[in-house]
Amino acid sequence: MTFSSKLIEKAVEAFSSLPGIGRKSALRLVLHLLKQDKSTTEQFTAALIAMREGIRECRICHNLADEEICQICSDARRDRSIVCVVENIRDLMAIEDTSQYRGLYHVLGGIISPIEGVGPGDLHIESLEERVKKGEIHEVIMAISPTIEGETTIYYISKKLQPSGVQLSAIARGVAFGGDLEYADELTLGRSIVARVPYAAK
Amino acid sequence: MTFSSKLIEKAVEAFSSLPGIGRKSALRLVLHLLKQDKSTTEQFTAALIAMREGIRECRICHNLADEEICQICSDARRDRSIVCVVENIRDLMAIEDTSQYRGLYHVLGGIISPIEGVGPGDLHIESLEERVKKGEIHEVIMAISPTIEGETTIYYISKKLQPSGVQLSAIARGVAFGGDLEYADELTLGRSIVARVPYAAK
Repeated sequence: MTFSSKLIEKAVEAFSSLPGIGRKSALRLVLHLLKQDKSTTEQFTAALIAMREGIRECRICHNLADEEICQICSDARRDRSIVCVVENIRDLMAIEDTSQYRGLYHVLGGIISPIEGVGPGDLHIESLEERVKKGEIHEVIMAISPTIEGETTIYYISKKLQPSGVQLSAIARGVAFGGDLEYADELTLGRSIVARVPYAAK
Repeated sequence: MTFSSKLIEKAVEAFSSLPGIGRKSALRLVLHLLKQDKSTTEQFTAALIAMREGIRECRICHNLADEEICQICSDARRDRSIVCVVENIRDLMAIEDTSQYRGLYHVLGGIISPIEGVGPGDLHIESLEERVKKGEIHEVIMAISPTIEGETTIYYISKKLQPSGVQLSAIARGVAFGGDLEYADELTLGRSIVARVPYAAK
């Protein structure tokens, strides 16, 4: 790509340094900003700077927060006796999107992965133990992806929390709703037969 | 998508206001910036601000420029007797990428399109006439897409420039190099037979 402007070239490089944006897409974005008023670029960059400068980690659950304590932890309408443990903020948002959960969260900041050199000490497990020790929490739901690393993390956390006597649970696994049995993978289908649940006609 | 942070929400909205970036991609970009140092976001936004504030239109050819006159127009090594007329900067860049052209350009800023309300007066055609009138230019190449609007634009410009006696040409059309005749569209194939060129074995 041949640029006759250093300013354009640098702006294209800036965009294409972001994940999933190639040089052609980057150029399209730059030309788009050029077509708009200067204020569009100013507002765009101001939102990013404000976000990057202002964002903090919630002191309680490690969720991203605008204040010292995140919106969820400071929401009086939420059930403070249940904590849902998630790997990252993306999983937290996915659960929030379901509108099926009204408890609190605990963001681990990753999962145990010896291959990637992530040990329990790198995750927010100790602060979870401390939260549970305070006695206000009755149930800890582990909403962690059912991978080998995920299962290891769940096992480690459950061993750490067992002495406290808190009720532990994990999200239900099985064939997806609306999914076709034919296309479910063997492991999921096999386990969903073993872990069958009583059926009650409603 | 449920956000527990206004700052994140605004940054996601900023990214997803750009063409081709949905809310999921926008969130991925925001989380990427959060993983990096604050300086990454600062450099990213600074490049965009510098570009948007600093960019100008070349006084001669209407290309985007860092100075009053663009890098191409001010390059003494380029052939000042040939001008290639293009619709926009993207087409200019595509031709530059071929490394087959060493003349100057003239960026129209669009093509004549009655449907979209773009008339000849909205394009940089008058300034092209003035450039040609000065007598330094011997050939004007029309490198405009072979669409109905493109052909109309070429016809209009050729009528305007004919009195000056400048040599007019258009980019060659025909079956693409490496293309399969079988898959060429009928119009292109038909015209490439009518407009056949003498073959000389090299």
